[in-house]
Amino acid sequence: MTTAQLSVAFFLQVAVIIAVCRAVGWAGRRYLGQPQVMGEMVAGVILGPSLFGLLAPNLQAGIFPQDSKDMLYVGAQLGIGIYMFLVGVEFRQDHFRANVRSAAAVSISGMAAPFLVAAVVAPWLMNLQLFGAAVTPLQAWLFVGAAISITAFPMLARILHERGVTATPLGSLSLASGAIGDAAAWCVLAVVLARVGDGSLVAVKAIVGGGVFVVFMLTVGRRLLAPLGRIVERQGQLTPGVLATVMIVFMLCAFAMDYVGLHAVFGGFILGAVMPRGLLAQELKRMLEPFTVVVLLPLFFTYSGLNTQLTMVDSVGLAGVTVAILVGSILAKGVACWAAARLTGQSNATSLAIGALMNARGMMELILINIALQRGLIGPALFSMLVLMAVVTTLMATPLFELFYGRKARARGELGALQAVEDGDRPVTGAVAP
Amino acid sequence: MTTAQLSVAFFLQVAVIIAVCRAVGWAGRRYLGQPQVMGEMVAGVILGPSLFGLLAPNLQAGIFPQDSKDMLYVGAQLGIGIYMFLVGVEFRQDHFRANVRSAAAVSISGMAAPFLVAAVVAPWLMNLQLFGAAVTPLQAWLFVGAAISITAFPMLARILHERGVTATPLGSLSLASGAIGDAAAWCVLAVVLARVGDGSLVAVKAIVGGGVFVVFMLTVGRRLLAPLGRIVERQGQLTPGVLATVMIVFMLCAFAMDYVGLHAVFGGFILGAVMPRGLLAQELKRMLEPFTVVVLLPLFFTYSGLNTQLTMVDSVGLAGVTVAILVGSILAKGVACWAAARLTGQSNATSLAIGALMNARGMMELILINIALQRGLIGPALFSMLVLMAVVTTLMATPLFELFYGRKARARGELGALQAVEDGDRPVTGAVAP
Repeated sequence: MTTAQLSVAFFLQVAVIIAVCRAVGWAGRRYLGQPQVMGEMVAGVILGPSLFGLLAPNLQAGIFPQDSKDMLYVGAQLGIGIYMFLVGVEFRQDHFRANVRSAAAVSISGMAAPFLVAAVVAPWLMNLQLFGAAVTPLQAWLFVGAAISITAFPMLARILHERGVTATPLGSLSLASGAIGDAAAWCVLAVVLARVGDGSLVAVKAIVGGGVFVVFMLTVGRRLLAPLGRIVERQGQLTPGVLATVMIVFMLCAFAMDYVGLHAVFGGFILGAVMPRGLLAQELKRMLEPFTVVVLLPLFFTYSGLNTQLTMVDSVGLAGVTVAILVGSILAKGVACWAAARLTGQSNATSLAIGALMNARGMMELILINIALQRGLIGPALFSMLVLMAVVTTLMATPLFELFYGRKARARGELGALQAVEDGDRPVTGAVAP
Repeated sequence: MTTAQLSVAFFLQVAVIIAVCRAVGWAGRRYLGQPQVMGEMVAGVILGPSLFGLLAPNLQAGIFPQDSKDMLYVGAQLGIGIYMFLVGVEFRQDHFRANVRSAAAVSISGMAAPFLVAAVVAPWLMNLQLFGAAVTPLQAWLFVGAAISITAFPMLARILHERGVTATPLGSLSLASGAIGDAAAWCVLAVVLARVGDGSLVAVKAIVGGGVFVVFMLTVGRRLLAPLGRIVERQGQLTPGVLATVMIVFMLCAFAMDYVGLHAVFGGFILGAVMPRGLLAQELKRMLEPFTVVVLLPLFFTYSGLNTQLTMVDSVGLAGVTVAILVGSILAKGVACWAAARLTGQSNATSLAIGALMNARGMMELILINIALQRGLIGPALFSMLVLMAVVTTLMATPLFELFYGRKARARGELGALQAVEDGDRPVTGAVAP
């Protein structure tokens, strides 16, 4: 495929992706009460080999030619990176600090329980020959632990955002716990990958690099960024020069976290969290969010969907294993996080909601297991089971969240944005910012 | 290069690109009075093999690995496509209609004179063996005519936009003439390509496809889009659903024009021109412009710069040929357009300004000659000469525009935005929209 053909293919692809994501998102909202994000996740799977590719393989291959997948991947990474930056910009550190004990407990439980369950599940899965031939029991255990403990951090953020609760204690606690837990899970993945032959320095690089980055950003980085906020306040607007500066720093942070072996989204999120608040933050959201949410995020969901082959799970035995993985995952993550929040003094409603949200694994799981598949850590059958686990735990999140928290909160008037989400389109934040 | 490595490379690349574009743009504004756009064009050349690649070939290849160029290309096409859509959105048809006689005269002169000059220049260049071996005299003539007659349409639009004169008669006339002339030049290129072995249907497809698209959009398309404007007015804001609809239609238009063999920018521009005006147009600009101008357009300039090798022109003889091409091009385009505008009743200042702007060839020339190089129509030496011609005619545009029009207009208070452009950053339109 020539470069010029790639660009032609890209425009058609993006048209199809946005159209299908909006259509499925609308149907999910209208008939199932799912947020737009869940519809877009399902839309991605629909566009891949599991449905569109099954029904019309030639047409699907024509719209998503193999050569064009790299572009889709890069667009997806950019989208998710900027989105997580915006989530970071909205991150309320005061709530995080007020809930630091709960956040630590939830994220430690959300790590410990999955690794305990994995200690039972992993040897069983190894016996079933679902791992690569060269994988050791230790690697299998660490991988299953990471796969169970990871949270759909961007999706969790988007659900909270669509419900308008990002800035509440529930939102800040979930985001903080999710961020800590996911960073830890990525570090564990790095350790596993380090042992699959990438050299032991990979793990050191990921852990030390990530640590140094976070400490640097929270101290020096925050201070270096402060003048940007003052410039914007003084000029009363966000000039292209300031926007360009922010985008340069964003790209460097995303690059740094990708480079050390973690993931661009952490760079984006941490940068967003230390950005000066006020007019700068407001204007950044207003200028970046519409394009990111409407154009770039659907690319992410579609890229993941193209790698998802649900047809792999095609026997009763495999279906049974899938159910076992699913139940183990829900117990080890959702129930454990609920218990941890409850034991550290959160209300039962908040704790249940946190359990429901932390239990959703979404696209972070898909990213993690795609890496594992590529490196030969797991086989295609286990990959497909984990995809199903990710989809089901994510589908569960919203109805459970509604059941445990949403309805009561709405009755108390705390979920003002919810009605709008269910009835029709949530206004792009940019359009309603002051 | 694996897919994951591509994404890592992309973030670093974009950081470098935005940083260099802003730095050179700032220097050009500060010390040479050139608009930001010219600085970014030069920044692209600097980042390519002509300077960065010459001074530090390994570092340059490390930041811009061969495998990553497709991504850069697609990002560039998306950026230029959305940018031209926004230019179309700002296009004032009332001015176009009021100046229809001038616009027709300017664009016809801007086509006729270049093809006359090309009839002399092309055989000479053929004698110098600067064309591909299989190229016929007719093909050489048509190609040189197209290469001389093409206008830096997106750049012209950006210069007018940065000076705040897009909505004046000068702006509308230049944009209309540029659009007509460029569309014709692309059709001629299609005819040439059709004869290089792509099958004669290529030319028919381009001309018929482009014609049908324009007629459809101006009649049925305009009417189909009208409800979007009413929805936005009624809701008082641009919802994600409406933004998604616009983006889907945009992608389809860009795809259609790429598909028939013209270029995505024409799809974007025509769609923008027929979009409903009012709140929808304002909000689209506000939501799409900052990201497009600050992040995506620099990708376009860099991609073109990476293909530019100024080191090819390395002898007195070749330098002489370059000067001849340059002088012929200026006479055939700039002087001819000035004469046409003057003869159809425009003031001398306006006519001179139009000549200066139409004479700039910028990146459209680079796109055109890159295609010609790829298809074996021209050799690398003629390619490099045409790059120099494009750079010089584009560099001339702003000082001449200032000399002929800008200073007087500023004295009369018609160029309010100009001071801001020269002194510092122009505010992103989104930040100052009502």
